[in-house]
Amino acid sequence: MASRTPQALPDGSRDDTGSWFPVPDEAELPDDLRGLFAKAKERLGFVPNVFRVYSFRPRRLSAWFAHFRQLHEATEQLGAADREMIAVVVSSANGCLYCLVAHGAALREELGDPILGEHISYDWRRADLDPRRAAICAYAEKLTLRPREVTRADLQSLLDSGLSLEEAWDVAEIAAMYNLTNRMAMATNMLPNREYSAQARVGEV
Amino acid sequence: MASRTPQALPDGSRDDTGSWFPVPDEAELPDDLRGLFAKAKERLGFVPNVFRVYSFRPRRLSAWFAHFRQLHEATEQLGAADREMIAVVVSSANGCLYCLVAHGAALREELGDPILGEHISYDWRRADLDPRRAAICAYAEKLTLRPREVTRADLQSLLDSGLSLEEAWDVAEIAAMYNLTNRMAMATNMLPNREYSAQARVGEV
Amino acid sequence: MASRTPQALPDGSRDDTGSWFPVPDEAELPDDLRGLFAKAKERLGFVPNVFRVYSFRPRRLSAWFAHFRQLHEATEQLGAADREMIAVVVSSANGCLYCLVAHGAALREELGDPILGEHISYDWRRADLDPRRAAICAYAEKLTLRPREVTRADLQSLLDSGLSLEEAWDVAEIAAMYNLTNRMAMATNMLPNREYSAQARVGEV
Amino acid sequence: MASRTPQALPDGSRDDTGSWFPVPDEAELPDDLRGLFAKAKERLGFVPNVFRVYSFRPRRLSAWFAHFRQLHEATEQLGAADREMIAVVVSSANGCLYCLVAHGAALREELGDPILGEHISYDWRRADLDPRRAAICAYAEKLTLRPREVTRADLQSLLDSGLSLEEAWDVAEIAAMYNLTNRMAMATNMLPNREYSAQARVGEV
Amino acid sequence: MASRTPQALPDGSRDDTGSWFPVPDEAELPDDLRGLFAKAKERLGFVPNVFRVYSFRPRRLSAWFAHFRQLHEATEQLGAADREMIAVVVSSANGCLYCLVAHGAALREELGDPILGEHISYDWRRADLDPRRAAICAYAEKLTLRPREVTRADLQSLLDSGLSLEEAWDVAEIAAMYNLTNRMAMATNMLPNREYSAQARVGEV
Amino acid sequence: MASRTPQALPDGSRDDTGSWFPVPDEAELPDDLRGLFAKAKERLGFVPNVFRVYSFRPRRLSAWFAHFRQLHEATEQLGAADREMIAVVVSSANGCLYCLVAHGAALREELGDPILGEHISYDWRRADLDPRRAAICAYAEKLTLRPREVTRADLQSLLDSGLSLEEAWDVAEIAAMYNLTNRMAMATNMLPNREYSAQARVGEV
Repeated sequence: MASRTPQALPDGSRDDTGSWFPVPDEAELPDDLRGLFAKAKERLGFVPNVFRVYSFRPRRLSAWFAHFRQLHEATEQLGAADREMIAVVVSSANGCLYCLVAHGAALREELGDPILGEHISYDWRRADLDPRRAAICAYAEKLTLRPREVTRADLQSLLDSGLSLEEAWDVAEIAAMYNLTNRMAMATNMLPNREYSAQARVGEV
Repeated sequence: MASRTPQALPDGSRDDTGSWFPVPDEAELPDDLRGLFAKAKERLGFVPNVFRVYSFRPRRLSAWFAHFRQLHEATEQLGAADREMIAVVVSSANGCLYCLVAHGAALREELGDPILGEHISYDWRRADLDPRRAAICAYAEKLTLRPREVTRADLQSLLDSGLSLEEAWDVAEIAAMYNLTNRMAMATNMLPNREYSAQARVGEV
Repeated sequence: MASRTPQALPDGSRDDTGSWFPVPDEAELPDDLRGLFAKAKERLGFVPNVFRVYSFRPRRLSAWFAHFRQLHEATEQLGAADREMIAVVVSSANGCLYCLVAHGAALREELGDPILGEHISYDWRRADLDPRRAAICAYAEKLTLRPREVTRADLQSLLDSGLSLEEAWDVAEIAAMYNLTNRMAMATNMLPNREYSAQARVGEV
Repeated sequence: MASRTPQALPDGSRDDTGSWFPVPDEAELPDDLRGLFAKAKERLGFVPNVFRVYSFRPRRLSAWFAHFRQLHEATEQLGAADREMIAVVVSSANGCLYCLVAHGAALREELGDPILGEHISYDWRRADLDPRRAAICAYAEKLTLRPREVTRADLQSLLDSGLSLEEAWDVAEIAAMYNLTNRMAMATNMLPNREYSAQARVGEV
Repeated sequence: MASRTPQALPDGSRDDTGSWFPVPDEAELPDDLRGLFAKAKERLGFVPNVFRVYSFRPRRLSAWFAHFRQLHEATEQLGAADREMIAVVVSSANGCLYCLVAHGAALREELGDPILGEHISYDWRRADLDPRRAAICAYAEKLTLRPREVTRADLQSLLDSGLSLEEAWDVAEIAAMYNLTNRMAMATNMLPNREYSAQARVGEV
Repeated sequence: MASRTPQALPDGSRDDTGSWFPVPDEAELPDDLRGLFAKAKERLGFVPNVFRVYSFRPRRLSAWFAHFRQLHEATEQLGAADREMIAVVVSSANGCLYCLVAHGAALREELGDPILGEHISYDWRRADLDPRRAAICAYAEKLTLRPREVTRADLQSLLDSGLSLEEAWDVAEIAAMYNLTNRMAMATNMLPNREYSAQARVGEV
């Protein structure tokens, strides 16, 4: 509830999420989120900080994630690696530490190529991508940085590279989603879990 | 389904949404969306083009809207007009025609002040806003244009203007959401319904 | 006359022009300006705030307006609506509230199309303009934002769209003029008269 | 008169003004402009190319110059050199070759300091200006590059540096005028007369 | 030697440096460079591609490296890790893949902290740096992106954080050097050796 | 040696170099630098301030200059004037007062054309350059301002204009070098010697 005496932000020393907002105890969260956290611990070994930070507003987290997860369902010409690639290119254009580290790890994993994944996170233009991937990256970067200038011809370039209409839409929607997610990460000061930095490095994939 | 022969975009002459993607007939949509469209027609007299265009991917529309609608629930220090104001300021920074027209109309309506609403859509800085609203606009614009530079002090400025922690979070999440929505509108070439331009003009509110 | 004790700006509460400079009483103005004001009241029903604010320097206002008014004389391929369109596109690129509202109203009126006029004020690229108007808008925006990069080919594009040499010159000179006018409006904090917001809306033209 | 067969631009080889538009013979010009040209030849030894190029539209040149000349009338705290300084700072921000060369010469002359004048044309920040001149340059540059962000405090900074209200207005109006003039020079491809480069160099003033 | 028939760039398939220029065989290089390469192989296990690519101009490589190496000599308040940090911050601001990967590895090594090193390469602002390091990063980024605006106060901020005059100079000279080096890497299309990606990762330092 | 009590910058009133760092007496410098200074005095009549300022770190000056001087060795298709042209175009893009004045003088001298040299320093695009020089300037400016976007095609454009592979490399390396040099000049606040402003003006070359 709002108050005329300004509230102070928590001092941030309690936990390692980096969040400028209070981070609830997992035990206080609704069932669906505790289930989500449990699944994450099972699959990854830890709860991603984006979940812990976003759980300050539990209904919001549930709604956001229900949308978000749909965008990472692989299709024939736009696989899991491609979808992480879009996440990373948008996060690089916006300079989002959390997403570059967390989705950088996922990209290395999905590509099965730690070196290519790292290169894309720094500069997709010099990562020697094939024409389909280069077209996808160019589109995602333009929609992020100069959305007003995106044209029908930009969209056609995705179809020309072999994507279906649905997949071209997905490129746009994933890019749009990470423009939301990056900003939530930066507005809350979300820091990536330390585990990400070790995932899918050379010698492991 | 993906195809190696590039698909052509529809020619766009079939309807008035502007969309570069096919726009499904309402009759083909799932029940929940037909319900959504019916409610919109009842409340507004028409179906907003964002619904019609986004229904090319019905599950996505349902998921996006379930998140989106939560963000427009008014609270004590962040009312319906304030939430539309954030939508309009972000859309102005991104230059999104659809959202400026559609949420510009909503802002005029919620403010009960057609002139102030129009002014905010062009330049919130010269719209003579009170300190709380000016702080909200400044934050939303910065998170849109320079998210990497957003600091804890920027967040504190929202609390100092009288917002609760939850409301400060909402400013960030609404701004983040319109960074998604603006990009979907520009990526699909969504055009605003003609009705918006007439709503809540001088003499009516 | 200059003074070593810094002068204070007027407190701005006296009138509704928004001006940070003193606004003279109409009665103190030279004959030519009182005539100009009278004509404006007759034609529009009010004196545009640009006249009231600029009359702090009466000779300047006379000189500026003598130049300005020549640029709105319609020609065969560059009509009154086209000239207002250039004003609005430049003002949008510069983000000038006064000119967007005042010339936005004039654009709606001259086009006889309130919706198209509103759309151009937010994003000419998605306003479905014909090639001649799109070429004019592209030129005016480039001369505003990246004047150093304007080339002979940009100029030729205006001739190719059907303009005469004189009309191509006019596109440049109108765009240049609003780069002056926008800056005077923003330097003085000119606010648009409230009447503009009601002019030429849907149902009226 | 407009024509549907695109007009070609003149080939530009006829004269040394650089103009992409036809340059009329002086003999064909109205009396007032021939008088202006004669006076320029008497004072400078040549007709500035801005006059020759702009005379493609004689009435426009007369109107523009009637306004322009008022802005270079010196006052106590804003002398002739200060007014040329504003011209040069705006032209540097816009990158206008014609105005940098022509007003750079005038600035060297009016300052009686060829070195300081040259330095200001490249970077006023490192030209070791006194606080009054630094405040004027900062204001003129901001109004040129970020007009939307100009505030009442920016204006007050001019008064604090010792300018009168009228002189503060002049800083704004001169800066605004060169935003027009620079764009006319670049839109027409005006090149500076060769004589300017030799004026007011070391050893002469 | 120059030729009027345009030379073609090599097709780039011969080696893995990525260079758009011919890459000489090591055997053809002058003694000093063969010594440099041998030392690199001994210390790192491979010859960094910057050496192989730059050896197209052997004298230039010797001269550049003689300057470059001086800048990485550690001092009391500006250690080896700090110097790599400047390299990485400048390379991030310029978006240089080669230097981000190669000096990113060196930074992880010198810090003895693979996670902190990775974070700095994506966003030093959110890497939780102490005031001395934050001041150094802020200065290096500003000198890279807005050199014209660097002031005496920016320099003083380095001294205030505990650096000596010589070390403050070094911050500037290292940042300036990487503005050269980044551009050589991008102009030649230098790609980082694959070995860098594995160096100094979690579990190793 | 570093100290925890912040060091103060020298007050800058001792000499005319502008430097924010101490400027050593020439007598205290190592032999090689005293030789360099002597040669400069013989050739130019004065010691360029870049030498005096940079001599705060004598070994660095020697190393930098050993590299720098190689880049100004003329070749068949990339003469002394062309190399100064690159210096000036990069310095203009970065806005470096010192280099614009000092290398502007050298450019006027090497071109044997004071007017062309001055024009290039303000806007190479309107300086009526031949295709080879225009290609060189376009490349140098892009490598300065948007290095990440430099492509193989940009490099090929240099070969197409008649440069050899070595000369194309030189364009890149000179541009890269002035990105270092400009930043050292701006970080130290180097001011150009007064003599430069008088060199190679009209009537002298």
